[in-house]
Amino acid sequence: LYHCYRNKVFAATTVKDGRARWMDDPITDIEALEKSPNSMRTKMELLLMRVQAEFCHALEEQDGEKKFHVDRWMRKEGGGGGGITCVIQDSPVFEKGGCNISVLNGMLPPDAIAQMRARGKDLPQDKSLPFFVVGLSCVIHPKNPHVPTLHYNYRYFEVQKEDGSTVWWFGGGTDLTPYYLVEEDVVHFHKTLKDACDKNGNRGLYPKFKIWCDDYFHVKHRGQRRGVGGIFFDDFDQPNQEQAFQFVKSCAESVVPSYVPIVKKHKNDSYSYAERQWQLLRRGYYTEFNLVYDRGTKFGLVTPGARYESILMSLPLYAKWEYCHKVEPGSKEEKLVTVLKNPKDWV
Amino acid sequence: LYHCYRNKVFAATTVKDGRARWMDDPITDIEALEKSPNSMRTKMELLLMRVQAEFCHALEEQDGEKKFHVDRWMRKEGGGGGGITCVIQDSPVFEKGGCNISVLNGMLPPDAIAQMRARGKDLPQDKSLPFFVVGLSCVIHPKNPHVPTLHYNYRYFEVQKEDGSTVWWFGGGTDLTPYYLVEEDVVHFHKTLKDACDKNGNRGLYPKFKIWCDDYFHVKHRGQRRGVGGIFFDDFDQPNQEQAFQFVKSCAESVVPSYVPIVKKHKNDSYSYAERQWQLLRRGYYTEFNLVYDRGTKFGLVTPGARYESILMSLPLYAKWEYCHKVEPGSKEEKLVTVLKNPKDWV
Repeated sequence: LYHCYRNKVFAATTVKDGRARWMDDPITDIEALEKSPNSMRTKMELLLMRVQAEFCHALEEQDGEKKFHVDRWMRKEGGGGGGITCVIQDSPVFEKGGCNISVLNGMLPPDAIAQMRARGKDLPQDKSLPFFVVGLSCVIHPKNPHVPTLHYNYRYFEVQKEDGSTVWWFGGGTDLTPYYLVEEDVVHFHKTLKDACDKNGNRGLYPKFKIWCDDYFHVKHRGQRRGVGGIFFDDFDQPNQEQAFQFVKSCAESVVPSYVPIVKKHKNDSYSYAERQWQLLRRGYYTEFNLVYDRGTKFGLVTPGARYESILMSLPLYAKWEYCHKVEPGSKEEKLVTVLKNPKDWV
Repeated sequence: LYHCYRNKVFAATTVKDGRARWMDDPITDIEALEKSPNSMRTKMELLLMRVQAEFCHALEEQDGEKKFHVDRWMRKEGGGGGGITCVIQDSPVFEKGGCNISVLNGMLPPDAIAQMRARGKDLPQDKSLPFFVVGLSCVIHPKNPHVPTLHYNYRYFEVQKEDGSTVWWFGGGTDLTPYYLVEEDVVHFHKTLKDACDKNGNRGLYPKFKIWCDDYFHVKHRGQRRGVGGIFFDDFDQPNQEQAFQFVKSCAESVVPSYVPIVKKHKNDSYSYAERQWQLLRRGYYTEFNLVYDRGTKFGLVTPGARYESILMSLPLYAKWEYCHKVEPGSKEEKLVTVLKNPKDWV
């Protein structure tokens, strides 16, 4: 279904923005990107190429041993496009991590359009319409239970209407899933995201997107959030395309400073067998969220021609489910669960 | 939310059908059962009590060491009823297994009725109606990768219409998920189910329910069945209630002879680290099926007041997800996957 290879030769190009460190060539032809430097498709693809590379290299530096394995895949069904999936597995610091760019063109079926209409998009009923999406999606499951799991995802979406006009929006977010609560780390994480949100004078966005994040990453049947949150947004198109892009850029660039210091601080912490078992149970709940509730995963798995390996990359290497597991009153585990049941403000 | 306890005292009663070996007292009052011995609710609850007990005791005998832990729970929301959840975990032979009876009364909301109407039930639109269900649901994940995982589930459903009449049906099935293909075991399993189906002269049912099983337990995004199938049926109400019950009884009674000889045969097989890792990967796919596709799990998790521990009891103790795992050509693993991709006839 897919043609995977590691493209080792970096093309000579005038798209200068950090290309020497990219994980691979962009999915869109470099010539095409150079010809339309002001198109939002180009700007977003180049931003995400750079963020992917900076993030992967920062983690490789923390790991000190293994490099991300790079799979380039091209989509053969349902339109054009492809992706660059970078995976690190069973390294000294990371149990499993994936960081995936995808650039997809295709036709949206009428029921997908209906869902967008229900969210307020000005799109026609009962039509199939061409779409374009470029996104970067990442989940990192470290080995050490004292290093939290990280997830982020930033994307730009376009739907072409029949009159030739385009409906566009951004979506994304960054959120943290610790196994043990270290309050100053959570404060650092949220503070970094808040500063990134505030950077362009958007003072109201962090509080709004923080609550959205708590609401979204909710393992409803357990009455617990997946983690300590962060930010989450969708359908973002205000006040105009350029300023919305600057906001998304600022958020995407805050991933490394929000997370890598926490990895560095805890990657060599010692941990017990019981702490490892607790991490595995929490990874079971993480799996439940992703397979039962996550919109992106569910949408991906029912999309014909979707690359399920890149979608399920988010699942941990190992997970555990114990019947009726209970945390001990007064324990470190209970301290975490209390916050997951009642999300709090961190900044 | 639930009150769990082990009821150690067996009531003195004239409901004689094997009560000395029941896992616990029936959920419905014994007096009430005695007063309506010919009601299908009574007959089905007593059948499932007996099948649960025979099955759990047969596995305990194979294990030789651990007993099932029994949780009795009563439902406090959305109507009456409760359940008897029997769990065995980390025993010599079984990594995790659960066998759960539930007896539930409540009101079905209009959208649940709409789904039943879509399946052809003669029920009114836009109404809430009282329902009753008694079911036995079971998943066994053995430790040894040479012993297959078993799942079965038998249930009787009633919806009360406004004119006082009742719409009723049976559903259920038994299916096997081996990690390595031992053809004669699969033949034994299917043959036992076929004999059970044929017992009452219903020669057409096994082939129909065998195909239904292959279609239902399909991990669609991977293009593989969860296992080597068995039988699966729903909305079963032919030719009349008593004969339909006799069919379900015959199927439910075939669980022990279809599975226990396979446990006995392989429980002491030696296995390698690689075989254990393969089992964990397959358990990841099992988890994907249950959380992404299984109707019962999805329905259960969104039902207010449902007991998620009894629903998620079906998940393995440990599961594993590797990025882009591939089976080696010509290997024993590939031999299994070939059959999972192209289900075959076994009898």
